Amino acid sequence: MPHQNLQVRLAARPVGLPKDSDFEIIERPIDEPGDGQVLVRNVFLSLDPAMRGWMDDRKSYLPPIALGDVMRGLTAGVVESSHHPDFAVGDAVQGALGWQQFAVAEAHELTPIPEGVPLNVALGPLGMTGLTAYFGLLDIGEPKPGETVLISAAAGAVGSVAGQIARIHGCRVVGTAGSEDKCRWLIDELGFDAVINYKTVDDLHGALAEACPKGIDVYFDNVGGEMLDAALRLLRFRGRVVLCGAISQYNATEPPPGPAHYLSLLVNRGRMQGFIVFDYQKRYAEGVEKLGGWLAEGKLRYREEIVDGLENAPRALLRLFDGNKNGKLLVRISQG
Amino acid sequence: MPHQNLQVRLAARPVGLPKDSDFEIIERPIDEPGDGQVLVRNVFLSLDPAMRGWMDDRKSYLPPIALGDVMRGLTAGVVESSHHPDFAVGDAVQGALGWQQFAVAEAHELTPIPEGVPLNVALGPLGMTGLTAYFGLLDIGEPKPGETVLISAAAGAVGSVAGQIARIHGCRVVGTAGSEDKCRWLIDELGFDAVINYKTVDDLHGALAEACPKGIDVYFDNVGGEMLDAALRLLRFRGRVVLCGAISQYNATEPPPGPAHYLSLLVNRGRMQGFIVFDYQKRYAEGVEKLGGWLAEGKLRYREEIVDGLENAPRALLRLFDGNKNGKLLVRISQG
Repeated sequence: MPHQNLQVRLAARPVGLPKDSDFEIIERPIDEPGDGQVLVRNVFLSLDPAMRGWMDDRKSYLPPIALGDVMRGLTAGVVESSHHPDFAVGDAVQGALGWQQFAVAEAHELTPIPEGVPLNVALGPLGMTGLTAYFGLLDIGEPKPGETVLISAAAGAVGSVAGQIARIHGCRVVGTAGSEDKCRWLIDELGFDAVINYKTVDDLHGALAEACPKGIDVYFDNVGGEMLDAALRLLRFRGRVVLCGAISQYNATEPPPGPAHYLSLLVNRGRMQGFIVFDYQKRYAEGVEKLGGWLAEGKLRYREEIVDGLENAPRALLRLFDGNKNGKLLVRISQG
Repeated sequence: MPHQNLQVRLAARPVGLPKDSDFEIIERPIDEPGDGQVLVRNVFLSLDPAMRGWMDDRKSYLPPIALGDVMRGLTAGVVESSHHPDFAVGDAVQGALGWQQFAVAEAHELTPIPEGVPLNVALGPLGMTGLTAYFGLLDIGEPKPGETVLISAAAGAVGSVAGQIARIHGCRVVGTAGSEDKCRWLIDELGFDAVINYKTVDDLHGALAEACPKGIDVYFDNVGGEMLDAALRLLRFRGRVVLCGAISQYNATEPPPGPAHYLSLLVNRGRMQGFIVFDYQKRYAEGVEKLGGWLAEGKLRYREEIVDGLENAPRALLRLFDGNKNGKLLVRISQG
């Protein structure tokens, strides 16, 4: 076992897209777990758009990452040593253990990964990614069979799961994505009813109106900006807008304009509502069971991209924002 | 009884604030009621900000008023002749009978006004005005005792009722208004906990933050624009934004910007929801009973301005938008 712990720390608050100098990559001695604590070797790090927000010095649902702190992030790994009866060496676990090779955690900070669930899947469709789609779409969106559900960033980690859950619930599912490959995947593999390549359409509102001829009952928004505004214009009576994310805005250096057509919510008696998956902790088991069942039955598919090496995580993070990755983005920190 | 019916018709679609030439004031012979129909003499016309939206050629919760049609509007009046067993000459009724002295209506278009309720009150705190405040605040806003409720256009017809209902429900009530007189009335007569004269503050967000030190649990929005955005910034965990109106935008000739801080809904798991009072028709009796009880107990106060003469209605409509009227605005079409 090595004695050094490679870590990625936040060195500076990014302005716009994060750059190399916003991160510091250092080695520190591995901490010793104390009484009741567990030492985990991280195998995979999940890269998520929300991380960009955590790097800003702004009030949010979690405190900002402090300058000099290890970057916050969800990981899946293996117990290296344990001073807690619930965890044994070799156990697979996940938690918010950060961008580092090793982490000392309290037992309550760890969630066991059931046998047979690969670590990457535990961070993807059966982890926060899948649960975000599950609770956001079903609890906030409340889709009913036959309704039209629009998903933006539909080929992304969360969007692709949300769209498939809507399909499983008997909805007409329309997705937006930024490449022909993604659009083909959504139609051919995931069973979306219609897709829009937002990068090649001249008239986004017109394209959405054509793909959603009856209007939009549920809009699951991952991107914000122009897409949110166009979707609001097409909202149906009692339509729901699920605010899951706003990836088009996270690197903005000027405050982006808000959705000008928000009064569509008034005219159509609609609602726009935000959520954070952490609020559903008490119901994670329900979500994992459902998602696991659909995965096992082949009703839920996913894809992922794995970047090797923790030192490559800062550059990999940018791939969330350039539109060129496919599905879930993970960093392999060590061999499982 | 006169033979002529003075009417105000929509002559042109307004651009910005309506001007005289957007209306046509004409006399027509009074229609004869047919079988099952009722002839009503209008006594009061309610002037409401929503009317401005009905004058635009735009999809909304009601079809636009057609060019050449009598202006749409709620009135209270007296039955002049009746061919329906439910209505007798002299009965007090209300309905969407339009900007005219006389109207022929089907029985189902009329609502009886109970004995003892003055016609002006039936259009104000006990009518759509009061019911809008009642259902919007309680059903969409769901205020709980001790919560902070912010009301914009708080001295207006709907806002003043909404604020008092919030106070009756044990909330801390903060209002915004556009004159010192209005602010004094809200504090001294209606029991608001704090008020902001938005016309004299330099820093709206700062003033709101001071008046709502714990943040905002419920924002009842009548104005939109900068006020909505400032309120969103102060939204608390699980806060609710009730979209009742957006009077700052109705006369805009360029699309106004949307609320830039809408992501506060995500961070705080908030919701922003629109409603239209007409959806609550089945529960009007409940609302009228509650509002009537509070009025009788002196817990609910109101004020109104009455403009004499239907021919003055077009100019009076502008008073909704110049910030100089106090409370409910009515036009007296004939003597009750």
